[in-house]
Amino acid sequence: MRPGPRLRPIGFVRSPFKAPADLPPPAFAPPRFFERAAVGEIEVFPEFAAGLEGLEGFSHIIVIFHFHKARGAKLEVVPPGQTEPRGVFATRSPHRPNPLGLSVLKLLGRDGGVLRVSGLDLIDGTPVLDIKPYTGRDRKSRIRTGWLRAKRRASR
Amino acid sequence: MRPGPRLRPIGFVRSPFKAPADLPPPAFAPPRFFERAAVGEIEVFPEFAAGLEGLEGFSHIIVIFHFHKARGAKLEVVPPGQTEPRGVFATRSPHRPNPLGLSVLKLLGRDGGVLRVSGLDLIDGTPVLDIKPYTGRDRKSRIRTGWLRAKRRASR
Repeated sequence: MRPGPRLRPIGFVRSPFKAPADLPPPAFAPPRFFERAAVGEIEVFPEFAAGLEGLEGFSHIIVIFHFHKARGAKLEVVPPGQTEPRGVFATRSPHRPNPLGLSVLKLLGRDGGVLRVSGLDLIDGTPVLDIKPYTGRDRKSRIRTGWLRAKRRASR
Repeated sequence: MRPGPRLRPIGFVRSPFKAPADLPPPAFAPPRFFERAAVGEIEVFPEFAAGLEGLEGFSHIIVIFHFHKARGAKLEVVPPGQTEPRGVFATRSPHRPNPLGLSVLKLLGRDGGVLRVSGLDLIDGTPVLDIKPYTGRDRKSRIRTGWLRAKRRASR
């Protein structure tokens, strides 16, 4: 098998959540909890800050980050509040073969290498690997969300 | 600076597009070109196939892949059809500090470790690093798309 790329952080997250336990599992957070409460910053290292030019025109960004607190991958996980195991690729669990996380955040503003964001579901100090603009092609309609939908229905 | 994670492919893409030149830049593709024409497969290596269990209930998946043909990062790029340079993080260019790509694909079906997908904008043999279910939290409304929107307007 070809080896994959070796990555390096381009910056990190400044968040009100200091530890994984501070972060409610998204499925259990009050409605719009993350959108309302979770404001923070992404601080991009000075040597990469020029790469942010023009990003401020976008309302949302995709952040790919390192699940740096995850220890060990699993192929099956039991998501919070569930009893049945699911394949890890059918979940957003941190315990993945490649510890990559992804969040779509609202971009409130940019000041040089610092992005102010809301909708933050990341802990303080999370290493950021990539930032991309969120475009119309990332916005899908008529989606089905498998076990996640079944769970939400059942919990009502 | 902390080093980032070392990644390994979990599978690869089977696509009708054999080389980067076969792929129209998304901004120039005919409307719904990718959705209609670009059907292919993601073949997950047998040792990771159990991680796909339950993914078939989702209509769309997020694929994080290695831009394995990209040689060298740039902080500013001129997107196809543009004249002005943009910060690389304000684009989906492959020439990024960490060569990670992201596509949201429609999941047509799963047969063991093989996912049949449409909306494919990836070339044959692309190494896949992670697969995640696309959920309601990835679907943002009232989006603004900065220079991309300005471009589209100007080209009409």
